[in-house]
Amino acid sequence: MEFLVEIEVRLPSEMAGTTRRELYEREAVRGLELQAAGAIKRIWRVPGRTANVGLWEASDASALHEYLASLPLYVWLDIHVRPLARHPLESPRS
Amino acid sequence: MEFLVEIEVRLPSEMAGTTRRELYEREAVRGLELQAAGAIKRIWRVPGRTANVGLWEASDASALHEYLASLPLYVWLDIHVRPLARHPLESPRS
Amino acid sequence: MEFLVEIEVRLPSEMAGTTRRELYEREAVRGLELQAAGAIKRIWRVPGRTANVGLWEASDASALHEYLASLPLYVWLDIHVRPLARHPLESPRS
Amino acid sequence: MEFLVEIEVRLPSEMAGTTRRELYEREAVRGLELQAAGAIKRIWRVPGRTANVGLWEASDASALHEYLASLPLYVWLDIHVRPLARHPLESPRS
Amino acid sequence: MEFLVEIEVRLPSEMAGTTRRELYEREAVRGLELQAAGAIKRIWRVPGRTANVGLWEASDASALHEYLASLPLYVWLDIHVRPLARHPLESPRS
Amino acid sequence: MEFLVEIEVRLPSEMAGTTRRELYEREAVRGLELQAAGAIKRIWRVPGRTANVGLWEASDASALHEYLASLPLYVWLDIHVRPLARHPLESPRS
Amino acid sequence: MEFLVEIEVRLPSEMAGTTRRELYEREAVRGLELQAAGAIKRIWRVPGRTANVGLWEASDASALHEYLASLPLYVWLDIHVRPLARHPLESPRS
Amino acid sequence: MEFLVEIEVRLPSEMAGTTRRELYEREAVRGLELQAAGAIKRIWRVPGRTANVGLWEASDASALHEYLASLPLYVWLDIHVRPLARHPLESPRS
Amino acid sequence: MEFLVEIEVRLPSEMAGTTRRELYEREAVRGLELQAAGAIKRIWRVPGRTANVGLWEASDASALHEYLASLPLYVWLDIHVRPLARHPLESPRS
Amino acid sequence: MEFLVEIEVRLPSEMAGTTRRELYEREAVRGLELQAAGAIKRIWRVPGRTANVGLWEASDASALHEYLASLPLYVWLDIHVRPLARHPLESPRS
Repeated sequence: MEFLVEIEVRLPSEMAGTTRRELYEREAVRGLELQAAGAIKRIWRVPGRTANVGLWEASDASALHEYLASLPLYVWLDIHVRPLARHPLESPRS
Repeated sequence: MEFLVEIEVRLPSEMAGTTRRELYEREAVRGLELQAAGAIKRIWRVPGRTANVGLWEASDASALHEYLASLPLYVWLDIHVRPLARHPLESPRS
Repeated sequence: MEFLVEIEVRLPSEMAGTTRRELYEREAVRGLELQAAGAIKRIWRVPGRTANVGLWEASDASALHEYLASLPLYVWLDIHVRPLARHPLESPRS
Repeated sequence: MEFLVEIEVRLPSEMAGTTRRELYEREAVRGLELQAAGAIKRIWRVPGRTANVGLWEASDASALHEYLASLPLYVWLDIHVRPLARHPLESPRS
Repeated sequence: MEFLVEIEVRLPSEMAGTTRRELYEREAVRGLELQAAGAIKRIWRVPGRTANVGLWEASDASALHEYLASLPLYVWLDIHVRPLARHPLESPRS
Repeated sequence: MEFLVEIEVRLPSEMAGTTRRELYEREAVRGLELQAAGAIKRIWRVPGRTANVGLWEASDASALHEYLASLPLYVWLDIHVRPLARHPLESPRS
Repeated sequence: MEFLVEIEVRLPSEMAGTTRRELYEREAVRGLELQAAGAIKRIWRVPGRTANVGLWEASDASALHEYLASLPLYVWLDIHVRPLARHPLESPRS
Repeated sequence: MEFLVEIEVRLPSEMAGTTRRELYEREAVRGLELQAAGAIKRIWRVPGRTANVGLWEASDASALHEYLASLPLYVWLDIHVRPLARHPLESPRS
Repeated sequence: MEFLVEIEVRLPSEMAGTTRRELYEREAVRGLELQAAGAIKRIWRVPGRTANVGLWEASDASALHEYLASLPLYVWLDIHVRPLARHPLESPRS
Repeated sequence: MEFLVEIEVRLPSEMAGTTRRELYEREAVRGLELQAAGAIKRIWRVPGRTANVGLWEASDASALHEYLASLPLYVWLDIHVRPLARHPLESPRS
């Protein structure tokens, strides 16, 4: 099942630069893993914001939550999830 | 997978009373079917409104959409769906 | 009487990890007690958020408030409560 | 248990004046009955609007819904209900 | 004239427990005074929140502001005031 | 006591031009009366909208409601009222 | 350039069933054309609503507007467009 | 003085095609006049909507209102106006 | 040209009392100057809030911005400005 | 392609004055560069706020994001971007 996931990163402005960089590096590594595993199918940057919109695939909302909670930045993320259903244009009834 | 579904009924005020009653009767019949099929697990009236909150079960968002679109009142319903994940209190990790 | 309760956990990001863990452990213990007492009937994780939606039972709003205020995390919780009425599908008039 | 109930009247502007007046008269009669029965404890006009805020008393949300649905104007009302708990100033713990 | 006043308490989470307790004690004392003076006619706890809804009486908005600003917690309160008008059910025209 | 009153005019687009003009003429006459009586102290057009913001004076919210309900366009008006208190700049304490 | 496009269909409830069906058929045909042309890359049904979320590709916002305005249902659609930028996970800097 | 003006066109769906076309033609003519007069300095289509964002110039809000009210579609327009001040980048202090 | 200006004061709660008092004194002095200069024509306290609504006069939005930015509390103010146009009741066309 | 970009500056109030001034100077320098490069075509101050509205030009949303992320104040900016399409008044079809 696919989900539309919007993520806003809210790191405290007083976080040290090194901590921040190390977190972002670990986040990128985990992102690549989730991408390779097929959990993240597409992802876009929201222009002008430390935010992204992503198309995620998971067996259900519980599995999706596990994926999201595994992100190193998780405690600083503001995440909104929307369930997606098949559209007739992509699954025409024969 | 479980979903929290909020439904507001918006029948046009000029709809004839007989049409309205007949629609509500068919809606109740279909509701009982969905209940019997395990699609509607719990449902509550929002006090003071022709609206309800329901706990629905479906294999995914596409199956849920099919259930909702099968309601006789469907074209007059304003529906919002939220996906639900398991909470540790209900599924403690052993 | 049943209530739909939405709870968002807002721990300050600077809270020490040990304090946080100890609080969550006490929260889980209290949650199990409220579950055993029938106050929490169902509870779901909102995917991607440190938030939950719960179906609570209490004699009235004052009793519900006592339950909620007894949570160890209470001062960091953003809680919204909605009253629920019986729906005809669950209590058909004979 | 007490509830704070906000009601906005939304009669269609094309409704005939006589229908409107007759409905308002029946609404006033029913209002007095609910007041006499202790269901409506206080009620205020929202200045400038065909709307009111009321303090209602009912055993639970289901009973409150019955009261509200018994109003002759019910199908044209936009109603929002909030549950109220006891405040320490009104119920000091001895 | 009556006002509907909604108050949300927003104490900083880092405030010391003793300061907090002392403030709440002074708040309760001032609340009882305002109640005795007829300024607070009714007050309810919003379930699950450090918030209340109150029915206040004051000669006008300036007098009401004086009452509210006299609360010891005032600088941490988020307050919204709505003016209330007489409803025909409480003041029928003879 | 002064109030800030925001009024949006919502005439149905199908209303006949003559009805509309006649209503606006009666509205202007009533507006001048309320202005002469000191009820409307200042009034501004919201640019680009059939809406206005006004500074009204009335003994209390009930009197204000009477003024507003006396407007010929009243049933088509969407009105929001805010109570205003004295500001120290206009009433310095000596 | 990719865009996230959210479309809500708002057909008037009094539209005749045949008109409605004919419009939907033409909409499906045009949708398939836009899909074949690469303008619609992915599209999902919002569960419970006559609404969809789509991933569109167009050279710029003007070209996107042309695509959207070519939909047979266009005058009844409530459309919101968000621009999407490349995310590092999809375009890692080497 | 410059203003940012957002305009949404809300023609009733039952308006006849010929009326609609004639109105749009008159709107275009008036738009060109306002453009030639320097009242409309820039204007953009909001992609996917019968809406536009414009940069308008007028001596003050009253003059701007006259311009907007002169549009043939005016009674069907939902207009929001924001005042704009000079930015240092465009008017550096020497 | 007149503007409706809403100002909310957001001083950090940890600001020292003496700093706060000194700032407020300077704010009051500057307020009186702006009042004397005709920039502030009327000003009201929003009851229950450290906020005010004011009627300001300035040649345009840039001049208004200069006035507002000259307030000693400026960096802690959340300010919203609305442009006001003449209303026919105050400027009848002869 | 043009974009409407709204930027709100949110510097922490405890940031030292020298840091703040140095950042603003670098921001102004970068702003002039972006202006010279044609990325910023127009920019306005929102009166009363440390905020601006700008008309930006970029080949697509990714290029726009690069421009915005290059601002020295970027991590303290709350940015919202809207895509703009050509309006017939500026690009009449011949």
